[in-house]
Amino acid sequence: MAVTVFNERGYDGTSMEDLSRRLGISKSSIYYHVGSKEELLALALDRALDGLFAVAGEATAGGGRAIERLEHLVRGSVAVLADRLPYVTLLLRARGNTATERQALTRRREFDQIVADLVAEAEKDGDIRPDVDPAVTARLLFGLVNSLVEWYRPGNRRISASALADAVCTVAFDGLRIRRTLRKESA
Amino acid sequence: MAVTVFNERGYDGTSMEDLSRRLGISKSSIYYHVGSKEELLALALDRALDGLFAVAGEATAGGGRAIERLEHLVRGSVAVLADRLPYVTLLLRARGNTATERQALTRRREFDQIVADLVAEAEKDGDIRPDVDPAVTARLLFGLVNSLVEWYRPGNRRISASALADAVCTVAFDGLRIRRTLRKESA
Repeated sequence: MAVTVFNERGYDGTSMEDLSRRLGISKSSIYYHVGSKEELLALALDRALDGLFAVAGEATAGGGRAIERLEHLVRGSVAVLADRLPYVTLLLRARGNTATERQALTRRREFDQIVADLVAEAEKDGDIRPDVDPAVTARLLFGLVNSLVEWYRPGNRRISASALADAVCTVAFDGLRIRRTLRKESA
Repeated sequence: MAVTVFNERGYDGTSMEDLSRRLGISKSSIYYHVGSKEELLALALDRALDGLFAVAGEATAGGGRAIERLEHLVRGSVAVLADRLPYVTLLLRARGNTATERQALTRRREFDQIVADLVAEAEKDGDIRPDVDPAVTARLLFGLVNSLVEWYRPGNRRISASALADAVCTVAFDGLRIRRTLRKESA
């Protein structure tokens, strides 16, 4: 897949010649399907962004409390990341060197804003701790999700994609510590 | 600083010529101080690793419960990351293309093992939830810490380095959710 070659060599460092060699098809065959290398990049980035926005759409349209919709968004984003790992990896590495990358970064910021809005709403509902700035909370939350591209690989024997989504939500929403103190306080 | 140029252009994409131009000093001046480009890389990576291992040393030598030492390690690692941001960024991007990078990756794995051991110990103490695999917990914890290089910049007006360390510990150990249910249960 072209996206794998982009991830290995970097988009800038990959020529249509490289793609043709690695994919084992002629350059003219590639050009039969796409007009340019940048169009391939756009298709790959959209595959990640469309998945994330589908989940964001569910989260914002759905009923229920903001914290539940936020949890749905986190769980769904982990699923998209696990399912479309090379595409999300490419998206997270985009630095804005081309018009296509800049467009993708704009959509990424829109997505981040949806997360930040949900965090702020959940905080207003009294469901999320108010001692951390909502914008910082949103960044930490998706920093945690996005960090998965560094080590998670499909078929990981230690943890499945859905168990991973559970683990991320457990850590982020409930924390690692077993809270004895609260129990003691109210005993 | 050489490390900034490495981060911008990638280590492989940076020549001594590039460094000389960007630093405004002659190549012979650079060679007066270091034997090679790879020696510069080793110095930069050590600056990150030495900081992280100093904190790990405190965490493993210190008394107290494992969860407290783990929290010290997380807080200290955020401080090192904020203080030595370009060096830690370079370390996190190292992929093992040179002997120096491979050596750094070996040390990084040693550091990760210290984290994983502390998590396992805290879980045995009954201080950390046992429903997430300790190795996964360790990866999530430092995935969260390492994700800071993507957005945190020194002088960030929204949050100081020490407030950031607090926020990371709060989210990771105590979670975002305000736990009404526990209070209700024991009421």
